[in-house]
Amino acid sequence: MRLKNVKGAKEKIEACEYVIYEPMEYKGNYNRIFKNDNPIRIEIGMGKGQFVIENAKRFPDINFIGIEKYDSVLVRAIEKLEEPHLPNLKLIKADAQYIDTFFSREIDLIYLNFSDPWPKIRHANRRLTSHIFLEKYAQIFIGDPHIVMKTDNRHLFEFSIKSLMDYGYRIENISLNLYNDNVSDNIQTEYEEKFQSKGYNIYKIEVTKER
Amino acid sequence: MRLKNVKGAKEKIEACEYVIYEPMEYKGNYNRIFKNDNPIRIEIGMGKGQFVIENAKRFPDINFIGIEKYDSVLVRAIEKLEEPHLPNLKLIKADAQYIDTFFSREIDLIYLNFSDPWPKIRHANRRLTSHIFLEKYAQIFIGDPHIVMKTDNRHLFEFSIKSLMDYGYRIENISLNLYNDNVSDNIQTEYEEKFQSKGYNIYKIEVTKER
Repeated sequence: MRLKNVKGAKEKIEACEYVIYEPMEYKGNYNRIFKNDNPIRIEIGMGKGQFVIENAKRFPDINFIGIEKYDSVLVRAIEKLEEPHLPNLKLIKADAQYIDTFFSREIDLIYLNFSDPWPKIRHANRRLTSHIFLEKYAQIFIGDPHIVMKTDNRHLFEFSIKSLMDYGYRIENISLNLYNDNVSDNIQTEYEEKFQSKGYNIYKIEVTKER
Repeated sequence: MRLKNVKGAKEKIEACEYVIYEPMEYKGNYNRIFKNDNPIRIEIGMGKGQFVIENAKRFPDINFIGIEKYDSVLVRAIEKLEEPHLPNLKLIKADAQYIDTFFSREIDLIYLNFSDPWPKIRHANRRLTSHIFLEKYAQIFIGDPHIVMKTDNRHLFEFSIKSLMDYGYRIENISLNLYNDNVSDNIQTEYEEKFQSKGYNIYKIEVTKER
């Protein structure tokens, strides 16, 4: 994602009621923030937020948390959030590598949408489906681990299939060309909308694992 | 594959020294046919034979058996076999569903190239990567099961990944666009040559499993 320095981003984020500032304080207790025991789903790298916001609107009985490390991107998500308030949505500004420091056995599902492919081999551990990350995710799921991933990057997808399978995940669904399948219930990210309109191939995989 | 009735096919097959007529007679003893203990690799559905013949030429220390159920296709492979004789190649005319009746714990690797996709759900068991077939293959491998598959059919490939993983195979290599990768050592089938020249996407997966 091209990053711009957005003036006033920091202030907007601080003023936003959706943002959880000190996520470590709620570790293991996010249900208190939502004031219910509905399942909590997170999107790591939510970008400008379209996907997680649309999910929160469509599924009021599920809680959603969007995580994004860049102020300048997070602020774009905040700008999308008009009234009425969505009680089942929260946002966290954080780097994914710290995810197991602020969640503990409370996440139902992880969405990974159009994650950074980190194409160089020496950066493979930074890919969000590397075993380094799968190990962290293992600490935060409450039930059986469950990941849904979309990407337009073939190499990241090939890597992810291998990495997830080697880690013991099994495939629930896979599509090597999402837009040629029936995708009436698909919720798009901003990227996806753009890439799909250009005719890029979108890959999707849904995996689960027994605890 | 479009099937033509090839005149004289039956006679040509009968007269061909490469063809093993009564494969059940050699069950568990194919090394006697090859007169050595080199690994035996098979291609199920070899079509017109280009892939298995080229492999036999390139790798004299590996034995190859091409299996094809249609006379009219098998005869095209036979017509390709000029002198000198390839001592490490044999052909069998048979339907894949009987494979465990004529092999037993003696196969090193199975190639599945551009297999019939059997697109209808009710025919899923006929796909060569269904559990029905994986169960049969389990009976014929001598070492760790090892399958290499290529196809241009996205739905067959998606099905195969799931089916192979669910059966306990793990991915050694996967390519979702073979001709965009480095494929200098790739041996093409007739289909592949045609499809690739038309710009079709070719998928490839290599899987192994611990016994």
